[in-house]
Amino acid sequence: MKLVVIGSGPAGVVASLTVKTLQPRANVTVIGRDPVFVRCSAPYILAGKVDMEKCIEPDRILTERGIRVVRDEATEITKGHVKTASGKSFSFDHMIIATGARPIVPPIRGADKSNVFVIRGPKDVNSLNCQLSKPKNVVIIGGGMIGTEIAALLSERHKISIVEMLPRVLSASYDSEVTDNVENELKKMGVKLFLGTKVKSINGKTRAETVSVGNRDLNADIVIISAGIIPETDIAKKAGIKICKFGIKTNRYMETSMKNIYAVGDCAQTFSAIKNKKTGSGLANTAVLQAKIAGMNIAGKTSVFRGTVNASTTQISDLSLGSVGLTEQQARSENMKCKCGKSHTMTKYDMQPGARPLFTKLVFDSKERIIGGQVMGSGGIVPGIVDLLSFAIKRGCLADDLMMTSYSAHPELTSLPFANPVVMACEDMKCSD
Amino acid sequence: MKLVVIGSGPAGVVASLTVKTLQPRANVTVIGRDPVFVRCSAPYILAGKVDMEKCIEPDRILTERGIRVVRDEATEITKGHVKTASGKSFSFDHMIIATGARPIVPPIRGADKSNVFVIRGPKDVNSLNCQLSKPKNVVIIGGGMIGTEIAALLSERHKISIVEMLPRVLSASYDSEVTDNVENELKKMGVKLFLGTKVKSINGKTRAETVSVGNRDLNADIVIISAGIIPETDIAKKAGIKICKFGIKTNRYMETSMKNIYAVGDCAQTFSAIKNKKTGSGLANTAVLQAKIAGMNIAGKTSVFRGTVNASTTQISDLSLGSVGLTEQQARSENMKCKCGKSHTMTKYDMQPGARPLFTKLVFDSKERIIGGQVMGSGGIVPGIVDLLSFAIKRGCLADDLMMTSYSAHPELTSLPFANPVVMACEDMKCSD
Repeated sequence: MKLVVIGSGPAGVVASLTVKTLQPRANVTVIGRDPVFVRCSAPYILAGKVDMEKCIEPDRILTERGIRVVRDEATEITKGHVKTASGKSFSFDHMIIATGARPIVPPIRGADKSNVFVIRGPKDVNSLNCQLSKPKNVVIIGGGMIGTEIAALLSERHKISIVEMLPRVLSASYDSEVTDNVENELKKMGVKLFLGTKVKSINGKTRAETVSVGNRDLNADIVIISAGIIPETDIAKKAGIKICKFGIKTNRYMETSMKNIYAVGDCAQTFSAIKNKKTGSGLANTAVLQAKIAGMNIAGKTSVFRGTVNASTTQISDLSLGSVGLTEQQARSENMKCKCGKSHTMTKYDMQPGARPLFTKLVFDSKERIIGGQVMGSGGIVPGIVDLLSFAIKRGCLADDLMMTSYSAHPELTSLPFANPVVMACEDMKCSD
Repeated sequence: MKLVVIGSGPAGVVASLTVKTLQPRANVTVIGRDPVFVRCSAPYILAGKVDMEKCIEPDRILTERGIRVVRDEATEITKGHVKTASGKSFSFDHMIIATGARPIVPPIRGADKSNVFVIRGPKDVNSLNCQLSKPKNVVIIGGGMIGTEIAALLSERHKISIVEMLPRVLSASYDSEVTDNVENELKKMGVKLFLGTKVKSINGKTRAETVSVGNRDLNADIVIISAGIIPETDIAKKAGIKICKFGIKTNRYMETSMKNIYAVGDCAQTFSAIKNKKTGSGLANTAVLQAKIAGMNIAGKTSVFRGTVNASTTQISDLSLGSVGLTEQQARSENMKCKCGKSHTMTKYDMQPGARPLFTKLVFDSKERIIGGQVMGSGGIVPGIVDLLSFAIKRGCLADDLMMTSYSAHPELTSLPFANPVVMACEDMKCSD
């Protein structure tokens, strides 16, 4: 079996490794310009906390497993063949498209100036990094996950402003109970917030010097655009593969509209496990899962993608946040009848030194099926709660199921056994009924 | 409705609060000698890290909700009445027995000496605490969860030995891959381990001076017996309620053999959610869950106990451990055909400063249904994995269900997205098939 994978990001690498593990004799070629860059670490690289080199996975994770790596750009898919920028051609009987996504650059006048950056690949991060050696005025356009994380991490040395079109930061994943706290935390760190505000223009001669926001001009030595991503679908489209606004169309086996061609990761459309509707994801965990599923199907082990719930975690200074499924605002904006429950507990037993507040909000549909959750606290306790909720949402579980679970308890590691954050939020929902 | 609850530990308190919340007009009386003591914090009190007063819940958590608290000992249950040590009598139409458990004191000669302690109530902890002001030779009999935690915490100031009958510490919850590490960690802290060894006698005049173990006499200024608990069933037995070796017999509504009398917490028998067999639990999370279920049933909201999976977490120095369900050894000793999978990942992204090793072992039955899990790492990431596995075990989930979940990922909070500990352990199980 001859497999060509286009794209050597996390999705491409995981897909090829999956096939090779299940079918060691398969002939697997990965075509991609750059090795895997652990993108989520970019804020930590910029803050000088992590070395760039450590965030780039070496080709040998593929080559030592017998996978061929071609450092080139795939430019055209024809029947059974892929052509590359350097003029090579590779035949295949199965293909996986894992071309990823590119950053959205909003149509702002001056966005093309030399000190305006996006953050996607190692080159972007390197060029930006070089300019951060001295304290600077940094204007970040976009108050999503990457924008706020970078703001928090860079605020130790630099003067940061965030400009966000929507009225709240992180509003794609959190309701205002959480984002109010995040905004306060950012302000405490000296980050200036311009919310519900569009950037009019980026001004200066060749370099940006100011950013016009409302009636103000913000000083800007550096501008970072962190306004989301758009699926990279050009090569698929050119080949006649069906596309929608969320990316390359796929079914639940991750097959595209063209026989034996699969699409996975940020370039692929996905669907919500909650609403059974098409959506985008843009998260590494979705990409990795889709990659495994495509790989398994190609290797003859039928596997079905059960949809995304967009489980994510983030860290703003020492505030840890997690979100999964729908926020209350999202549910209501789609006219879903929903009920919410909240709890205020602690990250450790109340009496232990270092115990910090833990806030949990759960969103249920009218039948008390869990459809979303948000957690705000400190440290490793947050992803565990998110992952449990993610599992419960994907399996269509009810509040009763969450309440009847046995949760471990320990003075240093969890809330008190009679103050479990998930159970208390479920009870709050039932009581406020 | 007139409810009497015997016992004012966590189970009694949660049961009475549940009834009062659901039926605010119910007449609820709690009879018990002592207020709730947050027992798991005892090791931290002894180590001087937490104040005793903060670990005792005030009566007002009950009285301010309109629950009557009687600080007395219930001595006899007759038809519709309870008598107390001070000669009072209380009538009821529903009763909950939540008498808890008492520490097991093995029949060792000299176990009655004045400096031999058990650790259960605040009085035990206080008396022991007084003797720990200066560095001492402490011999701990029993290498279970409490014994090892105390050993680790006291080893900073004292010379500690643990004597454990079984060949490994923590063997009720962990296989040797984990306990080998714990034993090494304890040794590094200067704790002397005597495993697979019984205590012959505790020697001295009125006070213990040495403990005879094998051919050795260990110096002992203090002896701590931490050899497990035995359900406190005397009052139930005397009333003619059915008892088994795991405690007061109950059905899944937490009803005893006597009409309108329920039993919850450490005094009550429970059953395994995995094997559907009677068992004990002794964990606060089981007690609290049973208490809620009994409370709901009494208040007219039918609720069924779905069995225990014994989810627990513990902390030995800065090593965090978690366990749920069956260990491999337990499964094999019951002649269950089982398959295991292991993963070695990190507590954070590999490149982040402070990333520590994370070991995960999963146990599956022959149909790949998850029946147990053990996690060893550092910090809050451990209970989250345990709770997810607990949920999956209770719902009879398969390895495929765990593999198809969306796990959140973040540089500071989790393993790398393509190195999820649960997914990798599932894959390891499938590969070693």
